[in-house]
Amino acid sequence: MKKALLIILTLVFFESKSQNYYNDSLAIRLFFETEFTQGKAYNWLQHLCLSIGGRLSGSKQAEMAVNYTFEELNKQGFDSVWLQPVMVPHWVRGAKEVGKIVLGKKNIPVNICALGNSVATPKEGLTAEIIEVKTFDELRALGSNRIKGKIVFFNRPFPVNVLTGGAAYGASVDQRGRGPIEAAKMGAVGVVVRSMTHAYDHFPHTGATNYLDSVVKIPGCAISTVDADMLSNLIAANPNLKFYFKQDCKYLGEVLSYNVIAQINGNVYPNEIILVGGHLDSWDNGQGAHDDGSGSVQSMEALRLFAVNGIRPKRTLRCVLFMNEENGLKGGLEYARVAAMNNEKHLAAIETDAGGFMPREIGISVSADTLNKLQPWQKLLAPYGIQTINQFGGGADIGPLKKQGTVLIGYHPDGQKYFDYHHTANDTFDKVNKRELQFGVVSIAGLMYLLSEYGF
Amino acid sequence: MKKALLIILTLVFFESKSQNYYNDSLAIRLFFETEFTQGKAYNWLQHLCLSIGGRLSGSKQAEMAVNYTFEELNKQGFDSVWLQPVMVPHWVRGAKEVGKIVLGKKNIPVNICALGNSVATPKEGLTAEIIEVKTFDELRALGSNRIKGKIVFFNRPFPVNVLTGGAAYGASVDQRGRGPIEAAKMGAVGVVVRSMTHAYDHFPHTGATNYLDSVVKIPGCAISTVDADMLSNLIAANPNLKFYFKQDCKYLGEVLSYNVIAQINGNVYPNEIILVGGHLDSWDNGQGAHDDGSGSVQSMEALRLFAVNGIRPKRTLRCVLFMNEENGLKGGLEYARVAAMNNEKHLAAIETDAGGFMPREIGISVSADTLNKLQPWQKLLAPYGIQTINQFGGGADIGPLKKQGTVLIGYHPDGQKYFDYHHTANDTFDKVNKRELQFGVVSIAGLMYLLSEYGF
Repeated sequence: MKKALLIILTLVFFESKSQNYYNDSLAIRLFFETEFTQGKAYNWLQHLCLSIGGRLSGSKQAEMAVNYTFEELNKQGFDSVWLQPVMVPHWVRGAKEVGKIVLGKKNIPVNICALGNSVATPKEGLTAEIIEVKTFDELRALGSNRIKGKIVFFNRPFPVNVLTGGAAYGASVDQRGRGPIEAAKMGAVGVVVRSMTHAYDHFPHTGATNYLDSVVKIPGCAISTVDADMLSNLIAANPNLKFYFKQDCKYLGEVLSYNVIAQINGNVYPNEIILVGGHLDSWDNGQGAHDDGSGSVQSMEALRLFAVNGIRPKRTLRCVLFMNEENGLKGGLEYARVAAMNNEKHLAAIETDAGGFMPREIGISVSADTLNKLQPWQKLLAPYGIQTINQFGGGADIGPLKKQGTVLIGYHPDGQKYFDYHHTANDTFDKVNKRELQFGVVSIAGLMYLLSEYGF
Repeated sequence: MKKALLIILTLVFFESKSQNYYNDSLAIRLFFETEFTQGKAYNWLQHLCLSIGGRLSGSKQAEMAVNYTFEELNKQGFDSVWLQPVMVPHWVRGAKEVGKIVLGKKNIPVNICALGNSVATPKEGLTAEIIEVKTFDELRALGSNRIKGKIVFFNRPFPVNVLTGGAAYGASVDQRGRGPIEAAKMGAVGVVVRSMTHAYDHFPHTGATNYLDSVVKIPGCAISTVDADMLSNLIAANPNLKFYFKQDCKYLGEVLSYNVIAQINGNVYPNEIILVGGHLDSWDNGQGAHDDGSGSVQSMEALRLFAVNGIRPKRTLRCVLFMNEENGLKGGLEYARVAAMNNEKHLAAIETDAGGFMPREIGISVSADTLNKLQPWQKLLAPYGIQTINQFGGGADIGPLKKQGTVLIGYHPDGQKYFDYHHTANDTFDKVNKRELQFGVVSIAGLMYLLSEYGF
């Protein structure tokens, strides 16, 4: 009786609509039933996180993840499963980083980690006066004389009065991405960046930084938010404060890796591809649970829900586990290059790379008119958490498909906690709630069903 | 620039609507800015959880919580703050409970805790054969001969294929609420109940059980989900398996406690009251962080957002921190009794008792026609997380106001994780995300603003 009631709650909004929507709601409800009673996504994620662990491009773990997902996809009765070769950078963190505030004769240890792609410090570490700034403008206003030979501390926090974690990240991440370049231009010898998070804790957040060939490469590290505040307070009290850090990360050249791909052929429009993907690589310091083990297993599982229920899609469905999103995007670039070379038509590409949290939004990069026509889809997906369908579609790995005319779609779960875990040792399996991950699978599979049935 | 963009995002949907909605969206945006830059809810919650702790009715901690919140409310410049006396039951858990599976000469310890209101076992504990059932029908079908002298193990799990944690709870909680009554009717000597949760872990979940004067009172305990499965497996392999448990909880009679109340007077319709409330008491085994420290501080803070911004409401706003929701509901009953006695008119009562998670739904117990007129409110609250406004209004503490004609309103944040923590030692401060708690405050304060401006 309870179950009957729930089905009624799920379907009731559509009784006055067309028969199609009624059937669609049944199909998506079937995905829900299948996922919640016999889903595989959570167990796959457990294996990626606990049996393999952090999967940085070029690592043994990344290779294990390629092999594991390839084998698992091969068991699901898809029409084809293959590996797509791609050369990726191999950067290694090396020994655990050491960071200290040098306060006269006293050293105060702080929690740091090297920024991804960073160069090492000298072997014995780097000690220098540290100077705090909030913006690049402030840095440049200080002038080279004040910066030369010093460590620059970028300490602009995540703004609190923004609606989403993504907006806060967008307002802050320039410090990590360009901090070492901008500081080096002024003669700095190293960079410390406040971690990119609203969380107030002891985890430093890694993430890619960039260099230019034309600017000297100086080492950069991230410091936890708690330690960033301590450091800032001590600088205020001691303007000549020194900082010490040591890291021996290095770049080992390019190595061969793979995008992992699986496909169910469409039976009406087989040449129109609907892609769903996440990235299989992750940073090395955690388990890559939310970023992006969750998106990887959701992509695999969304396809499986069709196969296990014997639903033959009208259009071709393809799951792509991209390699190297975190520090190079080589997988996404190579995928788009091969697609163009083969004259493949990607009608739409969905990226799920925002964590295994409850579904909230779907962004679809179409015109306002088209978007308006898609609004009934929101009602179909609402029982599983989708509050809005808007135009903010996109994603790093699918981005290179844009110039081929592909409609880019971002799957956006609730994002308040994503940056609490993002790029840290704390991004672990236990932080992913099984049911929330599963609701994401159902929302994505439901969306793929609608795309396959109706196109745009 | 970023901030300007966000404000536009928040307000843009309303530019073509009436000027009222534009002003309303500004007022709610002001609540957001105030809460996220100078909010007090999270710090209040920290004090309730970490400096006071579990606040079971009649305990020293409950008294401390009454005093603390009364003092804090008195600092906020409200028009009046007062304590409403209420007699509440004083039940104590006593020494840590002990549970063991007796397997021949081997004892396997399991994680249990006494159900709230349960009687004790004999001092030396209780050992008996244990028999597993999933439903009361199954229990009765076994017959008294099979049950007499035994311990009954109610092991019906939370169903997985339901959309909400609340639906799963509703489908299972009869085992805890009436298990000891139904088992005792058949001659059982004790009851073990599978914990009420989707989580698969080692935490037993307490919660109220009930007795009837006409049925012998037998002790009941909850067992963690992991241990429930182990117990079930061992029973299947050993049909005559025995179980041992020992608990010395007891009821110490009624004691004086208080509902804590604060009010801002309306300046147009001062006799129409809009209530917001949570319950200040909690179970003793955790810190009562999600249940219901979160709802308590959200209620306090929703009122404060009016005061600190100098917004004088048209209708009277009242915050009520109810005492004794968990094991008696005496606070809610007494509040409604006094309201009726004083001929107060409660236009609407909002209950927030579903955790400090991201906002999702508001349930309002009005006609479909009225609900339809309120749908623009959903758009106003959508930026802060409200996906739907539906008719599923209500709540335990506000329930007694229904017969006075009060519209009952339930604030429903995302509920997938609530029962992971509910009534356990794991319901602690660190499980509440500051920003999610704050979005709840903004949604509730925004709703109160709209109720105050427009009524129904």
